Amino acid sequence: MELHVDDLHAALGDPALNSMNFLNEVAQHYPDAVSLAAGRPYEEFFEFSALHRYLDTFRRHLVDDLGQSPGQVHRTLFQYGRTKGIVHHLVARNLAVDEGMTVDPEAIVVTVGCQEAMFLVLRALRADPRDVLLAVAPTYVGLTGAARLLDLAVRPVATTESGVDLADLRGQIHRARSEGLRPRACYLMPDFANPSGVSIPMSDRRALLDLAQEENLLLIEDNPYGLFPAGDDRRLPTLKALDTNRQVIYLGSFAKTVLPGARVGYVVADQRVVGADGATSLLADQLAKVKSMVTVNTSPLAQAVVGGVLLEHGCSLVAATARERVVYARNLRHLTDGLVRRFPAGSSVRWTAPTGGFFVVVTVPFPVDDALLHRSAREYGVLWTPMAHFYDDGIPVHALRLSVSAVTPEDIDRGLDRIAEFVAGEVAGRGAVASAY
Amino acid sequence: MELHVDDLHAALGDPALNSMNFLNEVAQHYPDAVSLAAGRPYEEFFEFSALHRYLDTFRRHLVDDLGQSPGQVHRTLFQYGRTKGIVHHLVARNLAVDEGMTVDPEAIVVTVGCQEAMFLVLRALRADPRDVLLAVAPTYVGLTGAARLLDLAVRPVATTESGVDLADLRGQIHRARSEGLRPRACYLMPDFANPSGVSIPMSDRRALLDLAQEENLLLIEDNPYGLFPAGDDRRLPTLKALDTNRQVIYLGSFAKTVLPGARVGYVVADQRVVGADGATSLLADQLAKVKSMVTVNTSPLAQAVVGGVLLEHGCSLVAATARERVVYARNLRHLTDGLVRRFPAGSSVRWTAPTGGFFVVVTVPFPVDDALLHRSAREYGVLWTPMAHFYDDGIPVHALRLSVSAVTPEDIDRGLDRIAEFVAGEVAGRGAVASAY
Repeated sequence: MELHVDDLHAALGDPALNSMNFLNEVAQHYPDAVSLAAGRPYEEFFEFSALHRYLDTFRRHLVDDLGQSPGQVHRTLFQYGRTKGIVHHLVARNLAVDEGMTVDPEAIVVTVGCQEAMFLVLRALRADPRDVLLAVAPTYVGLTGAARLLDLAVRPVATTESGVDLADLRGQIHRARSEGLRPRACYLMPDFANPSGVSIPMSDRRALLDLAQEENLLLIEDNPYGLFPAGDDRRLPTLKALDTNRQVIYLGSFAKTVLPGARVGYVVADQRVVGADGATSLLADQLAKVKSMVTVNTSPLAQAVVGGVLLEHGCSLVAATARERVVYARNLRHLTDGLVRRFPAGSSVRWTAPTGGFFVVVTVPFPVDDALLHRSAREYGVLWTPMAHFYDDGIPVHALRLSVSAVTPEDIDRGLDRIAEFVAGEVAGRGAVASAY
Repeated sequence: MELHVDDLHAALGDPALNSMNFLNEVAQHYPDAVSLAAGRPYEEFFEFSALHRYLDTFRRHLVDDLGQSPGQVHRTLFQYGRTKGIVHHLVARNLAVDEGMTVDPEAIVVTVGCQEAMFLVLRALRADPRDVLLAVAPTYVGLTGAARLLDLAVRPVATTESGVDLADLRGQIHRARSEGLRPRACYLMPDFANPSGVSIPMSDRRALLDLAQEENLLLIEDNPYGLFPAGDDRRLPTLKALDTNRQVIYLGSFAKTVLPGARVGYVVADQRVVGADGATSLLADQLAKVKSMVTVNTSPLAQAVVGGVLLEHGCSLVAATARERVVYARNLRHLTDGLVRRFPAGSSVRWTAPTGGFFVVVTVPFPVDDALLHRSAREYGVLWTPMAHFYDDGIPVHALRLSVSAVTPEDIDRGLDRIAEFVAGEVAGRGAVASAY
């Protein structure tokens, strides 16, 4: 029995679905290269023994706080369980403590990472071939990939230096509607976005909510990096914290704040859904129905680890990530300082200056494609991410993404030295070719 | 912002997606009822402290057997990881030890429970509106629900006492093709099926594989209960063990053999897929691409728990489940003996006599719907599952499913007493109504 890729779902032939695989394969192929590519969290603080402690902490919570008997504890941790999860009350407390958000725990679905949350939301919203999703570009490739699997077209919304071009957003909504399409939502990361690093300022957050309400458009707010400001500025409120009209579906991740290996994320979906019989439910309950047929429920063992971390820090991830925040801020500063030294004023190389998060985008005077990444890894020993992976249109992009999350200052120094050589080599090589013709 | 269910994906209005929710809600609504409904594994042997031991065992395996450094151990367990999983080599060893199957570990994708495995396979195979899935009916509702989410029509194949009506299977394939449709695969559980309890005899296994090869049809073999024969008979080989032509996609679950709360399952997909460029890959690699956009990867912490159990039993789940097998066999005997005593020969009540697994189907002289389940719970204090949930056509079914997996012999006695009263009440009530007209 042999299959042909053309007989499988079209997404399997799509670059968006190959993007992560490609980047992982390049990294595996050049294990000695310095990697400024991976958006993984810092791993020096991981402790195996802490796993046991988190599990014990959560078990005590079930007994002492929730009054569960030993049999109930076993059932909670070992059996099939509540589709919407078992740490929803702790997630709600976390959102209250860290974000000042008041969230009904019943409006939360705990998911297998934020990726599943995204997938469930898109599956529920994509009802018809006329449905399209808007997404602020450049866009996290996992969003594009999930949409592809669901035959949901993604239309880009332009980015400005303040995150989202509101006029373009309104224009895209109107354009789609004039074409007979239904824009179901706009996806965006308002804080230290992946990959742009950009954050939306306060005034634009309110304007964005007003626009969404006027246009009757859902916003899908993804917030994996919000706890990592680099300076001492107060963090801005999330869109969901400002949302008075249930306009925002909020996606949360514990991958960057607790650990990726738990694969625990969540979605807050407090929108009311009117049923065929006129009865209303929460969108979260509809997402749970989808989830029951995708993964049944999120591993209670994995949830227990995340729950243990939350319980040990009074449900504050700001408190839980104090050490990591210092590392990320230091690394971000070290990277931008290093860029200044290596590419002085007048250089054709420019870069963004994010106020937090993991990512800096470097613009170079040549298009950056996958072949160049291979050359950079092979000849210069340094890995980064071509920004073209975050656009969906195949147009060449003269930029690359650098990540500071899983490296030391020494890695950054070595990596930037090599990137400087690589850029110089490219510029010289292209100059030589140009003059040879 | 308010949504209407009609604006969401059509599956959300479908009975198949509400089935699990409905059954869970009934169970929660009548907590004091005896439940012969739940297909959960036996929970008396669960031990919280064993979780720590499994994690430690798996950590030692990473260090001692795979030579990982402490940093690599942290990365394996805490970080994002291999999309196809980190216990694939142990799963392959398990299949060799327990099933005599030789499986390339690279052809295995470790998934978030068997449900995700099912979902990934259906997503990959459903490329076109002409695609349909065949499934031996009655069918596990999770299969139907997953297919609904993917707009994949499911066509039933008739069951005989030996599991699958081969003539009907061939007829369904031809009928679909003559309608211009593409039957992509046939889903079935050859061993102690949920819900029918039926197993396919050896001769039919070979005939089924021959038919699949002749018709160029994939078989999706789901095997959650195969390790639980009730007698001393040798277990039959799986279809995949007999498969010489890569005709079978094999779905595995650790929910019934290790613990549901790990949410770890897997798929063996060793089919070759020819790409647009002529290069071949394994179907497992295509499924991994889908998975990367659904859940990224399966929690390595959850995999470590399953890995620890496998390692502690020489990768034999036959060995790991010795105590449970005794319980299930005893309960199944106790249930069928109890049915004999309560419904003597000549009664209009009949039941299946499975040779293993969790389930017995009881046929009664009246249609069994959800309203009757409510009445049984409310008035008689006993829960079971209406067989109508496992058919997709809305036709009334005169049968209910009893499960023996999560109960004691005393529960079975009390449950059967109540079912006998319930059946008597229904028969009398209906007789009264009939004679009143």
